[in-house]
Amino acid sequence: MTTRVTRVQEAMHEAGVDLAVVGPGADMAYLTGARPHPDERLCLLLIGRERLAFVMPALNADEVRAQTDERLHTHADEEGPEGALRAALADVGAEAAVELAVEDAMRSDFTLTVQEALPGSRTRRFGELLAPIRARKEFDEIALLRRNAAQADDAIRAVAAYARAGVTERELANVAQERFRSLGAQPSFAIVGSGPNGAFPHHATGDRPLQEGDAVVVDVGATWEGYCSDITRMVVVGEPSARYLEIHAVVDRAVAAALAAVRPGARARDVDRAARQVIEAAGYGPRFVHRTGHGIGMTGHEPPYLTATSDVVLEAGMTHSVEPGIYLPGEFGVRLEEIVAVTASGCVVLSDLPRDPIVVPVSP
Amino acid sequence: MTTRVTRVQEAMHEAGVDLAVVGPGADMAYLTGARPHPDERLCLLLIGRERLAFVMPALNADEVRAQTDERLHTHADEEGPEGALRAALADVGAEAAVELAVEDAMRSDFTLTVQEALPGSRTRRFGELLAPIRARKEFDEIALLRRNAAQADDAIRAVAAYARAGVTERELANVAQERFRSLGAQPSFAIVGSGPNGAFPHHATGDRPLQEGDAVVVDVGATWEGYCSDITRMVVVGEPSARYLEIHAVVDRAVAAALAAVRPGARARDVDRAARQVIEAAGYGPRFVHRTGHGIGMTGHEPPYLTATSDVVLEAGMTHSVEPGIYLPGEFGVRLEEIVAVTASGCVVLSDLPRDPIVVPVSP
Repeated sequence: MTTRVTRVQEAMHEAGVDLAVVGPGADMAYLTGARPHPDERLCLLLIGRERLAFVMPALNADEVRAQTDERLHTHADEEGPEGALRAALADVGAEAAVELAVEDAMRSDFTLTVQEALPGSRTRRFGELLAPIRARKEFDEIALLRRNAAQADDAIRAVAAYARAGVTERELANVAQERFRSLGAQPSFAIVGSGPNGAFPHHATGDRPLQEGDAVVVDVGATWEGYCSDITRMVVVGEPSARYLEIHAVVDRAVAAALAAVRPGARARDVDRAARQVIEAAGYGPRFVHRTGHGIGMTGHEPPYLTATSDVVLEAGMTHSVEPGIYLPGEFGVRLEEIVAVTASGCVVLSDLPRDPIVVPVSP
Repeated sequence: MTTRVTRVQEAMHEAGVDLAVVGPGADMAYLTGARPHPDERLCLLLIGRERLAFVMPALNADEVRAQTDERLHTHADEEGPEGALRAALADVGAEAAVELAVEDAMRSDFTLTVQEALPGSRTRRFGELLAPIRARKEFDEIALLRRNAAQADDAIRAVAAYARAGVTERELANVAQERFRSLGAQPSFAIVGSGPNGAFPHHATGDRPLQEGDAVVVDVGATWEGYCSDITRMVVVGEPSARYLEIHAVVDRAVAAALAAVRPGARARDVDRAARQVIEAAGYGPRFVHRTGHGIGMTGHEPPYLTATSDVVLEAGMTHSVEPGIYLPGEFGVRLEEIVAVTASGCVVLSDLPRDPIVVPVSP
């Protein structure tokens, strides 16, 4: 059993949790190395106080057996998962009502199935126990995130080389994703918000062609070796306007202020405040409509979240984004995003790219 | 309010459900057209007996307002979602304990948050109510699935044109995904299982290069205009062995038998039986380790599921896969997958590709 599992079981003991239930995904991979294909078939890692067991669709069993030595209780499509679940619960010593923790991102029907098998249980979020453990990255994890960051830099460079008036948002997104794939990574998202679309922080990349004068939010990320990248830079088509440059400079200063605030012992809200203060002082406070950052690791968004109200204390080894933005409806948006690792004395930025506006020519 | 929502509210009334809760994804898009960016921020469609309301992260609000006229109760990152949830619950008339239905695939922490806001509620699966509605496709939906199927055919042709000894599984997967993208679709998965890897039904596509004599399972799918494709064909590198051709023929006959069994009024288990009987008669029963098929529409896997034990009755308008397989550990696997639409008298296959082995040359 890995050290990671031992840490989780200690946390369960402290919290009075008897059973933790985890579906396919990052938590399961982090704890056991198992990466079963996720679908609607009941697929669970059960963590008891002393033992682990899996509930596993039979058709995934051979592959998962090559990834873990823990016991698999398999179920075939025709029999349904109830028998395997009962056997696995018995295996980890959780046959009756328990204090239950379920993985935050797991499908709700998996949670209902477990609750029905253990009537009278109380259910809480497994993230409360696991997040503090996963948030402090091990040395090898930070090394992987660095390589992910280098790939993301490369994707931004590829977008910059391709961008010009007439190219659509989707084409730019494809360029980024193609670059990630050529590096062996799996693209996970690509937000390309051109001109007024950039004022939607989560704009769904569409068919709008870039136009002269557009500011373009390019926010891309991928997964490689189980870890994530995430970066945002601004592309401008032709000469940026004075107004654009002013807003860009405010956001850049907000990033710098937040970076300067990151250190062990700082609270997440302190970092958010540092960024927000710069934007408020410039008169754009109400247009910075989201938090300053989120943790990143085996998932693209994970604790710590850097919000205006979070008292989470940063620790060395944590890795998170710093990504303030200003969104001007009908005009444009500006967001600049760095991924940092908290060090003993402050933080290091994982990207090598400057945050300046990437000015591209109107035509090739 | 759309007819679809009205149907859901009728089903809620019949089932005694007061409140249905749906996260970002296919169910939400199907019912309202809203497609908010899914992440860990609480984002819910609440369906009361008479009214709808959304709980929406503030940074998605502008974009979602362009997709729906229903009321949005927004929350900013710094305030947390509790206030917006309370307001939305009041809006749909569900302020106290209720009979609750939660979307099957929704994040478990969303379900816990709603349960905590409505202590004493009883929770069931929303899929029980919505699945029968979503399973009977409207005319336009089947037209979209036909176009998706044509794209998947195209992806298989692209893979066939590229496959030869020395090309890796991942390269073939990339070829399929690239073709989907060039057609404007978003690839959702690409299982390429070469030689012995094909014996894992859900093989994670890897770096194994194809070798002379390999049988290669190619199972690919994408999303386009909100609907999904899914197809499996077999590529063989060089002359197929007699043993391979024998097994392939068994699987092909199993597909044909299942297709002949699909009609309104047939039970899902009847279709599964038709396929399984062919494979059992050939002596490979224990090597057909999964169900015969799954519904497909706005999600890649959805009801009806065609298992050996399902009593679901097929109806005209349902769309599902037929995909028997034989998996020989250490040797190879064979799976052939069609997507069909149930018609008044039987079914139509949406693909135009033959199911024969696609024999590719060893070298270019």
